[in-house]
Amino acid sequence: MKQSDGGAQKPRVAVAGASGYAGAELARLLFRHPGVRLTALGADSAAGKAPEELYPALRGLGLPVYRKLDAAAIAAEADFVFLALPHTEALGMAGGLLAKGLKVVDLSGDFRLGDSADYEAFYKHPHGQADLLKEAVYGLTEIHGADVAKARLVSNPGCYTTCAILALYPLLKAGLLKPDGIIVDAKSGVSGAGRKLVQSGQFCEVDGNFSAYRVAGSHQHIPEIEQELSAAAAAPVQVSFTPHLLPLNRGIFATSYGALAKQVSEADLQGCVADFYRGRRFVRVLGGADMPTLRAVVGTNLIEIAVRLDARVSRVVVFSVLDNLIKGAAGQAVQNMNLMLGLPEEAGLDLSAFPV
Amino acid sequence: MKQSDGGAQKPRVAVAGASGYAGAELARLLFRHPGVRLTALGADSAAGKAPEELYPALRGLGLPVYRKLDAAAIAAEADFVFLALPHTEALGMAGGLLAKGLKVVDLSGDFRLGDSADYEAFYKHPHGQADLLKEAVYGLTEIHGADVAKARLVSNPGCYTTCAILALYPLLKAGLLKPDGIIVDAKSGVSGAGRKLVQSGQFCEVDGNFSAYRVAGSHQHIPEIEQELSAAAAAPVQVSFTPHLLPLNRGIFATSYGALAKQVSEADLQGCVADFYRGRRFVRVLGGADMPTLRAVVGTNLIEIAVRLDARVSRVVVFSVLDNLIKGAAGQAVQNMNLMLGLPEEAGLDLSAFPV
Amino acid sequence: MKQSDGGAQKPRVAVAGASGYAGAELARLLFRHPGVRLTALGADSAAGKAPEELYPALRGLGLPVYRKLDAAAIAAEADFVFLALPHTEALGMAGGLLAKGLKVVDLSGDFRLGDSADYEAFYKHPHGQADLLKEAVYGLTEIHGADVAKARLVSNPGCYTTCAILALYPLLKAGLLKPDGIIVDAKSGVSGAGRKLVQSGQFCEVDGNFSAYRVAGSHQHIPEIEQELSAAAAAPVQVSFTPHLLPLNRGIFATSYGALAKQVSEADLQGCVADFYRGRRFVRVLGGADMPTLRAVVGTNLIEIAVRLDARVSRVVVFSVLDNLIKGAAGQAVQNMNLMLGLPEEAGLDLSAFPV
Amino acid sequence: MKQSDGGAQKPRVAVAGASGYAGAELARLLFRHPGVRLTALGADSAAGKAPEELYPALRGLGLPVYRKLDAAAIAAEADFVFLALPHTEALGMAGGLLAKGLKVVDLSGDFRLGDSADYEAFYKHPHGQADLLKEAVYGLTEIHGADVAKARLVSNPGCYTTCAILALYPLLKAGLLKPDGIIVDAKSGVSGAGRKLVQSGQFCEVDGNFSAYRVAGSHQHIPEIEQELSAAAAAPVQVSFTPHLLPLNRGIFATSYGALAKQVSEADLQGCVADFYRGRRFVRVLGGADMPTLRAVVGTNLIEIAVRLDARVSRVVVFSVLDNLIKGAAGQAVQNMNLMLGLPEEAGLDLSAFPV
Repeated sequence: MKQSDGGAQKPRVAVAGASGYAGAELARLLFRHPGVRLTALGADSAAGKAPEELYPALRGLGLPVYRKLDAAAIAAEADFVFLALPHTEALGMAGGLLAKGLKVVDLSGDFRLGDSADYEAFYKHPHGQADLLKEAVYGLTEIHGADVAKARLVSNPGCYTTCAILALYPLLKAGLLKPDGIIVDAKSGVSGAGRKLVQSGQFCEVDGNFSAYRVAGSHQHIPEIEQELSAAAAAPVQVSFTPHLLPLNRGIFATSYGALAKQVSEADLQGCVADFYRGRRFVRVLGGADMPTLRAVVGTNLIEIAVRLDARVSRVVVFSVLDNLIKGAAGQAVQNMNLMLGLPEEAGLDLSAFPV
Repeated sequence: MKQSDGGAQKPRVAVAGASGYAGAELARLLFRHPGVRLTALGADSAAGKAPEELYPALRGLGLPVYRKLDAAAIAAEADFVFLALPHTEALGMAGGLLAKGLKVVDLSGDFRLGDSADYEAFYKHPHGQADLLKEAVYGLTEIHGADVAKARLVSNPGCYTTCAILALYPLLKAGLLKPDGIIVDAKSGVSGAGRKLVQSGQFCEVDGNFSAYRVAGSHQHIPEIEQELSAAAAAPVQVSFTPHLLPLNRGIFATSYGALAKQVSEADLQGCVADFYRGRRFVRVLGGADMPTLRAVVGTNLIEIAVRLDARVSRVVVFSVLDNLIKGAAGQAVQNMNLMLGLPEEAGLDLSAFPV
Repeated sequence: MKQSDGGAQKPRVAVAGASGYAGAELARLLFRHPGVRLTALGADSAAGKAPEELYPALRGLGLPVYRKLDAAAIAAEADFVFLALPHTEALGMAGGLLAKGLKVVDLSGDFRLGDSADYEAFYKHPHGQADLLKEAVYGLTEIHGADVAKARLVSNPGCYTTCAILALYPLLKAGLLKPDGIIVDAKSGVSGAGRKLVQSGQFCEVDGNFSAYRVAGSHQHIPEIEQELSAAAAAPVQVSFTPHLLPLNRGIFATSYGALAKQVSEADLQGCVADFYRGRRFVRVLGGADMPTLRAVVGTNLIEIAVRLDARVSRVVVFSVLDNLIKGAAGQAVQNMNLMLGLPEEAGLDLSAFPV
Repeated sequence: MKQSDGGAQKPRVAVAGASGYAGAELARLLFRHPGVRLTALGADSAAGKAPEELYPALRGLGLPVYRKLDAAAIAAEADFVFLALPHTEALGMAGGLLAKGLKVVDLSGDFRLGDSADYEAFYKHPHGQADLLKEAVYGLTEIHGADVAKARLVSNPGCYTTCAILALYPLLKAGLLKPDGIIVDAKSGVSGAGRKLVQSGQFCEVDGNFSAYRVAGSHQHIPEIEQELSAAAAAPVQVSFTPHLLPLNRGIFATSYGALAKQVSEADLQGCVADFYRGRRFVRVLGGADMPTLRAVVGTNLIEIAVRLDARVSRVVVFSVLDNLIKGAAGQAVQNMNLMLGLPEEAGLDLSAFPV
């Protein structure tokens, strides 16, 4: 199962921050990708180790050993780079890579917010890269795909963010949902917190348990959600967002509530969303009484969306699910890369979920 | 570990519907209860079996063998009875038991709704027991304890219901929350669905998964929640309620959202709830930034509540957790029995949660 | 993600018993297979339903609707058929399919045992198909691949069986392990028990639990293991086999113990197994202190094997892991089909495990 | 739920190393214990914190705040002390505590092995406390209870150890099992590894996974098992012991294999074990085809044992289960304390397992 040969002329791709969970998933996806060649995996603390020492599932692939990589080293070996670094680290690295002619997808929060004041408020760090921020395209592929295809620097959306925005965007754009009073109650698997060793990630503290965290408007994905939904509604949208931790590895389930803006039926609501995403291969809009379920999308680049109307209280409830490491991170990053390199949007993303 | 002797003069207690999950938990709690004597366990399909054949955790207790029990058989052996039967079955049984002088706690939904039209709408079954419905006391112990103590027939609240009402009641009563626009996003462990064999309860369909069910205003606990919260607010309250299924056995976590009705601080909100439950041994109101977590209450008769203010959007978020089989069912039923029999409220409920 | 076109000339494949877990996994794998065309899915109880009604993960694939299929109906639509039926049902079906010119892989236990007396002892059912039994090739691909390639009827090995035999075969064949006193302590995920609705498969009975079943020499995979290991050792081999149930969906982990037959080193033992499987793409033999771990193979057609020597007691311990639904069932069945149809052995089996 | 008053004359008890998992479980059990008064909790890294900051399940109990405690500080506040420290730390502490007149139960491995050479081989640390080692009683209560009752220093057995020894002891003592060729294949929940932050304990690495560790005769519980089983058999016993990690919090399941030494029936074997433990309240010997299951004992101080004969191969298989934090650590420690203080053996250990 070695990477196929004859790839000399394929674009060379590197991953910086490859030892984390999103980085490992990127390595897995890029290794299988028919249109690119994975040449380098950067990681500081794990430098010198093979990926399979951290991730036994990567055994036997012959992946590059982790190395400390600066911009020059990356530029020497790659035409395209994914930055899967901790927040704030891409700020100092992206510019140099672009200057050397690479295209960049950044998976951190560093270039997601158009307004750097929001960045500084939620990430507690000065931004200082105004030009790059202006240039960066927000890589929610189904919404901004045309801009992504022309971009040098794409900022890959957050996992919660992707799940919430794609669920609500069409209804707000169509004026079917009131822009105020929107609530997103989101539940995520543990891998969303990354590989960093923390007590709250220990099996004994998570198994059989459920809890909320970063509550009461403090999560850093809030400004990102509001930015996109405000654009959709052409009016300021503020959301109540509460993240919760599920005792499972992968997947986000978002339950979003909003007030009906016009007297339409449940079928109208469902039709609005289905029409919006018609032809989009990675969005599965359910109809009738079908409901999303996490495991239907885990392992794939899909998002599943269902819209229901609680007519008693004139409230719309939108259910959306995705795999936080794929459509919520590495998969959408590859989808963006595909557009940026002129490859088929679905290249390397032909994945399937387990029936059980 | 046989039940202690010298109990000849203690009230004799029976459980009808004892082979289900709530019934098994009742048997466990009553066996350990210092103030009553468990004399009979009714179950139709499991008649003739020992409880430990269904539940290995009950091995060695010497519990009564399951039998088919009608009202006469129960009356011959018990002074007090818990009905843990499927919905609609208590309708035909409760009257006869009361007539024979027994006190009754019913754990089904049959006597929870003051308006039998609500019952018929949500349970799809005619009620036809208007007198009993009028007599029945809604057994949310912390709210209606004084009436419970005088009752012959107590209707034990639902699991979701207890978690939602106790969380929101004090704030609505104090006028700090607007009565409209309340959302309860609830997540429950699988045991809430009972022991009945269904595909959706199979391990392979639940593990690593998460889903919503009975969405868009269709869950039968909604009228129960609205009935009590409307009483608290002295105004009609309608809630959006969405139940979800967690991949774990025990516990409910409810995240409830409401709009702030007055300009008060988070500390004011927390103080309101803390004051309301002061001295109530089974309600733990958290302060500051402390947050409920499921496993802190699993195995106990406690409910944990935290109130937070999302000041950006003037929205109150209340987090509440309980063990659905104890405070959400068998434990609260025993708590009600204690009051009805003049025993200490906490008798038999001295339980503790696992640190890990 | 519709199945690719231009498949008119590809072999047509059907699955009988397609609504079970192995059947659903077969459907998933065959849908993605580049060399065959999936034309029919047989299922009696689910007839008329789309596979996605039972398995949301199969949504959007456009798979054939389940139908009641007899041999004639299968023969009309397929050149090749997988029988994923309950034990004993293939006995009456295989002959007719062969007579109509189809090739058959049977995933049940019906044709695995050369001695029909063993079948009758462990499956409690008369066999009565002596000719077919004689013709059937035991489809442990890495051992009997050459015969599989020429066969019309292949009997796909059991999940436990594959895991145990592949682990021990090389050492017994090389005379490094004594043929007597072998113990296989095996642990399986819940999907191994299939989709049939049983109390012991309910989430509430499995989660947080662990148990053994069919103990003390009663499991039907024992004669299958002994048959192959006796052939390897060229001497009668009897095993103590204990299956256990793990609280997870997929995967088997077997810990096998045997007495060292010659004074060799741990490296010698590891070398023996590595040499035996050299070049076999679906067997990953670990060296040194590397140890198998379930999740390194779940989702793939791989088996991972590690051999360790407990020198204190001159005992060899072999650890082996596989995904019971893939290498232990559907994946190995496809591997066998590939050989029978002259396709590349790995066609359609290019799967990868999740890093997390 | 404050600790009951009137305890001034009760023995005062301290726990050193109270912030770990065994320490937290000790605190929970001692808080509920009717015969002692918990006065101090020692912990270095967590000094200054309340136990509930680490363990939300301990909220509301009013437990002592963690403090750095040396022998003098403990002696000033306690008559009895549990040492739940990392291995090697009790070596330097136990002597001083005894000298100040305290009784000590040590939960580490420091005083379990009669031969200090074994200690040094398996714990990689010099022992140097020969006198204490000689004085220490091995606290396997059901075997050495009479000596425990007279001891000043009791060494509490390991979790795996307790599960394995109690399962095999009666059969070896009765000469029904051959002393050579014994295999113990053990599976433990994650809490057995303690609270120390390690990558292998992260939820994302454990959930849905299963693996073996410290294989091939390297686990430090081996000499402890062999020491006791050799005493039982009055002959040298060597065991193959393989520990595995289960994806659940609590519980050990041991499957032990041995060769039948005399031609006896399964009922004879079961009778031997049942007779040996007759009257022992914390040992539940199953008969017939009843099988242990982890959740039947989790939360209790019980061990469940079943003996089965695989007559085909003349091999005995013994299944045993316990809660590693209770009967495997804190519970047995309390049981030993009860004997040492002249309290009823079962005081404070009246626990029950969840039916579901």
